[in-house]
Amino acid sequence: MASDPLLAASHVLDLTEPLPLDGGQQLAGVRLAYETYGTLAADKANAILICHALTGDQYVASRHPLTGKPGWWARMVGPGKPIDTDRFFVVCANVLGSCMGSTGPASPAPDGEPWGMRFPVITIRDMVRGHIALLDALGIDRLHAAVGGSMGGMQALSLAANFPDRTAAALVIASTARHSAQNIAFHEVGRQAIMADPKWCDGDYYSAGAEGKGGKGPEKGLALARMAAHITYLSEAGMHEKFGRKLQVRPDGTPGSKTFGFDADFQVESYLRYQGLSFTDRFDANSYPYITRAMDYFDLAEEHGGHLADAFAQSTARFCLVSFDTDWLYPTSESRAITHALNATGCPVSFVELSAPFGHDSFLLDVPALDRVVRGFIGQ
Amino acid sequence: MASDPLLAASHVLDLTEPLPLDGGQQLAGVRLAYETYGTLAADKANAILICHALTGDQYVASRHPLTGKPGWWARMVGPGKPIDTDRFFVVCANVLGSCMGSTGPASPAPDGEPWGMRFPVITIRDMVRGHIALLDALGIDRLHAAVGGSMGGMQALSLAANFPDRTAAALVIASTARHSAQNIAFHEVGRQAIMADPKWCDGDYYSAGAEGKGGKGPEKGLALARMAAHITYLSEAGMHEKFGRKLQVRPDGTPGSKTFGFDADFQVESYLRYQGLSFTDRFDANSYPYITRAMDYFDLAEEHGGHLADAFAQSTARFCLVSFDTDWLYPTSESRAITHALNATGCPVSFVELSAPFGHDSFLLDVPALDRVVRGFIGQ
Repeated sequence: MASDPLLAASHVLDLTEPLPLDGGQQLAGVRLAYETYGTLAADKANAILICHALTGDQYVASRHPLTGKPGWWARMVGPGKPIDTDRFFVVCANVLGSCMGSTGPASPAPDGEPWGMRFPVITIRDMVRGHIALLDALGIDRLHAAVGGSMGGMQALSLAANFPDRTAAALVIASTARHSAQNIAFHEVGRQAIMADPKWCDGDYYSAGAEGKGGKGPEKGLALARMAAHITYLSEAGMHEKFGRKLQVRPDGTPGSKTFGFDADFQVESYLRYQGLSFTDRFDANSYPYITRAMDYFDLAEEHGGHLADAFAQSTARFCLVSFDTDWLYPTSESRAITHALNATGCPVSFVELSAPFGHDSFLLDVPALDRVVRGFIGQ
Repeated sequence: MASDPLLAASHVLDLTEPLPLDGGQQLAGVRLAYETYGTLAADKANAILICHALTGDQYVASRHPLTGKPGWWARMVGPGKPIDTDRFFVVCANVLGSCMGSTGPASPAPDGEPWGMRFPVITIRDMVRGHIALLDALGIDRLHAAVGGSMGGMQALSLAANFPDRTAAALVIASTARHSAQNIAFHEVGRQAIMADPKWCDGDYYSAGAEGKGGKGPEKGLALARMAAHITYLSEAGMHEKFGRKLQVRPDGTPGSKTFGFDADFQVESYLRYQGLSFTDRFDANSYPYITRAMDYFDLAEEHGGHLADAFAQSTARFCLVSFDTDWLYPTSESRAITHALNATGCPVSFVELSAPFGHDSFLLDVPALDRVVRGFIGQ
């Protein structure tokens, strides 16, 4: 990563109490970096918590300090937008275990050295405990809504289930109540790619003198992990539409041709390589195993005696579930299972499968139907 | 790889003529290692060519010399079996570019050193040119059938299209007439995993003194490539059925539990790690990029002016296409597209989608309906 992301965070909260973790530890000295948009009402009843995905961050609707790119959900959050910051106070915190200012493996441990792989393995519920501590600090007793796509949806579900008084609504997009064997398998490939990179140095690559050249760490392994994961974020049809078998135009402008070598002949190869490489500029390699592990461990039913419906027994929220027809990472059947569980518990729930060509990534992209669903549900 | 696979090959053919390649080169000194089963009839009209898949080999129905495991299609090929060796003479050659005795990157180049990455990039059609040379040497003018699953199906298609007099039938299982963007993307992840491994040494890892410790080469990278690919061979439902979220039983026999660490807690993690590791005992890392490249380059329509139907204009074969409903690597739509092209050309073709839970791997596994289709089509 290029520079210290903490320098750019608008807000930082240092927790005064240790955070209890599902692994049994108490994590002291937790710091949470977060962004806010809009104004908190006097009665503090207009707050919306947005939860980010695996490689996301708190920069929902503001420029990313490392990449300079617009916020990852700028199309959805802002004045007059579906999540209208003229009306709502939006909070987004970098999750525990990540690397954009909140405490994670790159943060200093009590001995002053980076945690590295000494950082405790955390869960989605632990991330949510961090969010609750932030809401406490902001004096927000009850959210208007908890909102998230993908891993963000897991947090929204976990919050509604485990802290049932703390939100009046949960909007869960392209997500799941438990990681499947295939989900775990893809994550395991990513973790092994990072850990197989000799520059990983057992996670101890931060010091300038480490083999991981000046602290840049296992960039090849991290890029590989990102490449493999990125395929799962797209649909087969979407990839066909975007790339098909199109060949790379050569630097001199001549049309692409097969080189009978191992250069990136196909545009899809070049695209994936770029996705992998650029990811290493903004993400700490050690955060990747920690956050994927949290996702793999996620099984909301298991947390509640094996019955998903029981997870929502105390919930006071209304729910909205959204899936995409081309999402094969967290397919519609996962959202439907959650909907059935909510129905069984008598929770108010609406569920819609949207048609969009972008696969799992649809929740981040130009899907006007999603804008309408979000605006409708949040505006109630 | 543990030992010299050539020592175990039953038959070896050294081509006397250089093999012309799609890349424009002439490859001299090509050796093909092959197995045969059954007896060639006096009129040589009872020969069946079986073409193997990416990581397959010629040991269709005989014990693998490195792993000691039964042949990869022993359930399908043998006396009284669907491909009945009491009646047919079955030939299977290790493909050009592979590593089980046929010429590939591990073979000696004219300078006596292993080819490594100096080996020319080959195509599926080049592999088929090798098969044709073998048939010539065996005096087989016209096959009873060319048969293959996955990459084997590509070869069967290519043979029927490019050498239209050489086979009376083509049986193409779980295959495609062109590699999709998603197919290419997964292969690119595998290639990059191998090439990112410092023990790859630009493909020059064969000598005992190389960094790749005594010639074993980039085992971690090859294992990673195999792990990522293996996920694509299974169906999501099949993985759920087989592994779900089941945890590893501990070595002392106690039931599995989450370790809050990065061991293989889930059975699917352990399974994938084993698949990756064991693969490195039987496969040369450099063959992996070469064979995946050949598959990525495969586009039978493109070879014939962009119209798939034109590929079969001269064909005299009857065709059978088989797909599996849970195969997301080469889904049914691919077989259907081939069927439409064959219909357009007026070739006799039958097509069936079989229901089987094993994803792409179904063509190798216990699917009695496949046995019946193969027996019926081959027996004609």
